[in-house]
Parts: sequence; structure tokens; C-alpha cells
Amino acid sequence: MRARVFVRLKRGILDPQGAAVKRALEGLGYREVQELRVGKVLELELEGTDRGQAHGRLEEMCRRLLANPVTEEFTVEIVEDGARGVR
Amino acid sequence: MRARVFVRLKRGILDPQGAAVKRALEGLGYREVQELRVGKVLELELEGTDRGQAHGRLEEMCRRLLANPVTEEFTVEIVEDGARGVR
Repeated sequence: MRARVFVRLKRGILDPQGAAVKRALEGLGYREVQELRVGKVLELELEGTDRGQAHGRLEEMCRRLLANPVTEEFTVEIVEDGARGVR
Repeated sequence: MRARVFVRLKRGILDPQGAAVKRALEGLGYREVQELRVGKVLELELEGTDRGQAHGRLEEMCRRLLANPVTEEFTVEIVEDGARGVR
């Protein structure tokens, strides 16, 4: 089963990387970018077929390791069932 | 308009960060993780309402700045129209 975990800075936490990329895009003429935040995405291939259980385990992984609860928030998505590898 | 850009290492390019996270998860008992790759997600708020045009501009931004064409691949997603900010 494939899953994606998004880890992003909480609203209100300064994102210097995002600000730098936004400024660089403006310098290249992309003035339509009003806001830009940079986060992480983890793409996982998991053993097992129970989507609900996988979702719960992934949330637990985020709380225990993948996200910093002080500065970050996370979202878990099960992308598809089946045996394909993570791209 | 909100958009997401995923930037990930190409298949076949070693991902030491992903390997380290996978090993740490295994150490915590999450042995169901068979593969794990870490990428970036950029969440953008864009001015304008033309989805097709925005998609084209975002792909151009990726080619010019956001992704390294040698090691990385990218995907562009328009998440929604409307005036909400990027979370």
C-alpha cells in the first residue's frame, strides 16, 4: 500500500526557506506568487492491506518521529492499495 | 488559486535521508515500512484564476529554479481555486 505523509510548518511559524524561494521566483519574474511555504513529503510503501490500520500507524509515526510537534503539523494520505513501489 | 509542487529524487538516485528515516522507524518497531523516500512539497498561493496558465507557469518555475533536472523530478497540482491562503 502506498501512502504519503506531508509535514509542514505550522501557520505562524516563520519559513525562511519558503521566503527565499519566493524572492528568487520574483527575481525571475514570477510575480503572481503571493505566498509560498516549503514542507516535506514522505512517500512510503507499506506492507499490509488495512487502510484504517495503516493510517493510524502513520499518525503514530508522525507523533513519535516524523514531525516536530512544537513547530510542525502533518497530514497522512493513503494513496492507493496494491503492490506498486513508491515512485 | 492554491497549488502544490512536489519535488522528489528520480528513481535510482540514492536517498540517504529516506534510508535514515526508514531505519529509525524500524528501530521503533514499524517494520511494515518497505520503502521510504523523502521529497519536498511547495505549497503556493497564486494570483489569477486560469488553471491551465498557472500549471504551465509552475512547470516553468520547476524547470528554471525549483527542481534540479539531473537528480529530481517534479509534479504540479492545482489544489483549488479561490482566495484561501496556503495552510
